[in-house]
Amino acid sequence: MFSRETYISRRNELKKRVGSGLILFIGNDETGCNYEDNTYDFRQDSSFLYYFGLPYAGLNAIIDIDNDREIIFGDELTIDAIVWMGNQPTLHEKAGMVGIDTTLPAADIKGYLEKAAKSGQKIHYTPTYRAEHKLKLLDWLNIKPGAETPSVDLIRAIVDMRSHKTEEEIAEIERACNVTADMHIAAMKALRPGMHEYEIVAVIESVAAANGCRLSFPTIATTHGQTLHNHAHHHIVKPGDMLLIDAGAETPMGYAGDMSSTICADKTYTSRQKLIYDLQVASHLASVAALKPGVPFKDIYELSCTVVCQGLKDLGIMKGDPAEAVAVGAHAMFYPCGLGHMMGLDVHDMENLGEVWVGYNGEPKSTQFGRKSLRLARPLEPGFVHTIEPGIYFIPELIDYWGSEKRFADFINYAELEKWRDFTGVRNEEDYLITADGARRLGKKIPLTTEEVEALR
Amino acid sequence: MFSRETYISRRNELKKRVGSGLILFIGNDETGCNYEDNTYDFRQDSSFLYYFGLPYAGLNAIIDIDNDREIIFGDELTIDAIVWMGNQPTLHEKAGMVGIDTTLPAADIKGYLEKAAKSGQKIHYTPTYRAEHKLKLLDWLNIKPGAETPSVDLIRAIVDMRSHKTEEEIAEIERACNVTADMHIAAMKALRPGMHEYEIVAVIESVAAANGCRLSFPTIATTHGQTLHNHAHHHIVKPGDMLLIDAGAETPMGYAGDMSSTICADKTYTSRQKLIYDLQVASHLASVAALKPGVPFKDIYELSCTVVCQGLKDLGIMKGDPAEAVAVGAHAMFYPCGLGHMMGLDVHDMENLGEVWVGYNGEPKSTQFGRKSLRLARPLEPGFVHTIEPGIYFIPELIDYWGSEKRFADFINYAELEKWRDFTGVRNEEDYLITADGARRLGKKIPLTTEEVEALR
Repeated sequence: MFSRETYISRRNELKKRVGSGLILFIGNDETGCNYEDNTYDFRQDSSFLYYFGLPYAGLNAIIDIDNDREIIFGDELTIDAIVWMGNQPTLHEKAGMVGIDTTLPAADIKGYLEKAAKSGQKIHYTPTYRAEHKLKLLDWLNIKPGAETPSVDLIRAIVDMRSHKTEEEIAEIERACNVTADMHIAAMKALRPGMHEYEIVAVIESVAAANGCRLSFPTIATTHGQTLHNHAHHHIVKPGDMLLIDAGAETPMGYAGDMSSTICADKTYTSRQKLIYDLQVASHLASVAALKPGVPFKDIYELSCTVVCQGLKDLGIMKGDPAEAVAVGAHAMFYPCGLGHMMGLDVHDMENLGEVWVGYNGEPKSTQFGRKSLRLARPLEPGFVHTIEPGIYFIPELIDYWGSEKRFADFINYAELEKWRDFTGVRNEEDYLITADGARRLGKKIPLTTEEVEALR
Repeated sequence: MFSRETYISRRNELKKRVGSGLILFIGNDETGCNYEDNTYDFRQDSSFLYYFGLPYAGLNAIIDIDNDREIIFGDELTIDAIVWMGNQPTLHEKAGMVGIDTTLPAADIKGYLEKAAKSGQKIHYTPTYRAEHKLKLLDWLNIKPGAETPSVDLIRAIVDMRSHKTEEEIAEIERACNVTADMHIAAMKALRPGMHEYEIVAVIESVAAANGCRLSFPTIATTHGQTLHNHAHHHIVKPGDMLLIDAGAETPMGYAGDMSSTICADKTYTSRQKLIYDLQVASHLASVAALKPGVPFKDIYELSCTVVCQGLKDLGIMKGDPAEAVAVGAHAMFYPCGLGHMMGLDVHDMENLGEVWVGYNGEPKSTQFGRKSLRLARPLEPGFVHTIEPGIYFIPELIDYWGSEKRFADFINYAELEKWRDFTGVRNEEDYLITADGARRLGKKIPLTTEEVEALR
């Protein structure tokens, strides 16, 4: 936890920005997996963490701007709970750690909100992303499912504050990035043909655990790297394969790291693999070189796509003008995802607050296949933290689907592409902080080029 | 997945037992952790797995007994989903693997249930344990939160079927138990004073992962073993400590293992530690020796408590008649939990169906502190699989709470107990199958006695 002053000043700033009304923070509860008490690893809501710091289940909070009150609602532990789960500070002690004097029983929040609603106070809250949040709102605000009306004023205030990372936050993110780098380096050292993907997952995740971290998202470790978020781990890694890993650590305070690497199963990459791998690295490095305040991330995405298309043209897989290919969306056959996303208390930072606010500052988003998956587009500002992760993928289902209708046949050489359909995919990913005049990589460097990876194999 | 015949015959048996009406199976969905798409590891509902076998999110099912129909409701993958998450068999192919011919779009279930309700059909369903289940029922059955009425007929039928494990289920549980044993053995070999608890967690969990298993419940690895379900892992293991581990693997098919061990931080236990540890082992072995069909598990629990009380009396910590102490509940100062629980597709098998049906066959449960935590009490039957895990704990908060009112002062020697308040706790746990004439331990043996543990240190 940061100092109480951090949380007090964050809340003061939020009150100033939202101006009036009442802000409701719905904390997360325990979530049952296959029965109520077999819970998933508890994770507090990130905005609750940002303004109230407390990583405990069963809490909700109100900032009543109009009446100048800040209240945490929760219950004290029973003796049964202490016997089963261990002792904790009292609720009042916990609240004191983050500068809150007033605590009330969990059940009192409903009455408080009913009174506020009756008196005509505006009740601000963010979009829900768990079924438990929806059930709470149904009960507290007496609304029907689907009748939620999140506050845009609140969303914009939170997004702006959380987007600009402070020094103490950057130090914490860098801690996550260093553990994340170690996870990838351990995998590069451990991988051998004949292993199951899940054996490499064991290596990766044990590095996070041994550093007291949880995972910032479910680990990807797949010989089928063409599937962007492939969570299956049952394949055997064969000679000649590449293993695409996308994995990250989250520190106990909740800050995320997120890196990707694509490792050769053998001691070296094949010359064919190098052709695509080197092109991914070229796109990656061109993107990194372009990072600085004021540049729209969307422009860097377009640049990264054009580098990929030029390279694929050189290989005979694409044709025509690379910039035109990107403009019409033909690149998305190989690069159907974005270039990167904000990162902080969430690995896709603030995703639950709405991509249009987090990544687009309210500007409209493209609906084009591929381009619509760009999560971050707005001009970069100092304090932003985000990933860089262009990718090149050969997706048999997409090749067949587009190929059947000869989509973008002016730009895609389907005859040549057929020879690459089983190539799988390449992605490398690093994390960057936008500084006053450029950008800085966060966390220790993981091998990026084929030479750097091969040196560890 | 088992053969389609397994699922067909399970459903036929269920239909026979429930007799009439319509059975609604609510499958589990993906669950967002800190935003909707950052999901926890998906886990299908266990009864859905038992009758329909399919480990996929977004499915629900109906067995319409009156109209002799079995239907799985779900949606086919979009091309976007295939690009991001990979290809899968079609819904119709999946359903075919478990002997179901009819599949319908996910949205159609609401209309089906509305029609059934209008025609007066009884709709059977089990108790909900996730907020998402409640939201579905609100929508589909048009009921208010709290107005759910689970079907006792259905619960009893499922509990009886799932309680009697078949040979193919036992083989799968034994697979989970073997991995579970390896997790504990690895911890026994790796533990050194100076390590953080989370470093041992990393060792334990990587054994599960390296065997392609997930965890059957959140790992306990604590120097504060007096807290029964202590999920904190940040302490450093000091010389003279004991580390209590409670951890288990779950196979890809969903079957659980669950074992506990209490390891000395040094190469050997102290003589003081052995006094309590040996007593736990004595209680454990007495319980195991008593296992056979027809014996109420409650009686074995009473036996295990009496052994503990006799031993604590020998040490001067308790006094009076041990059997009387157990009858009034004085043992719960040291042994506030049960002796064991059913195990199968859930580590606390069928806990969501209600302890009174699973563990008590509908008989009333004690409300006495300690005794009320006994999850299994009913007479044992061949095919039951359950844990054996008596424990001896010194819980400072409970010592202070009961001590302040001199509770059970005829049986507890509070002056002597004060000398033990920082002892922490000891638990060992194994898994057993009730056979035709006794019981069989499942999975390879983990060290139980101090000599056996010390041999690995």
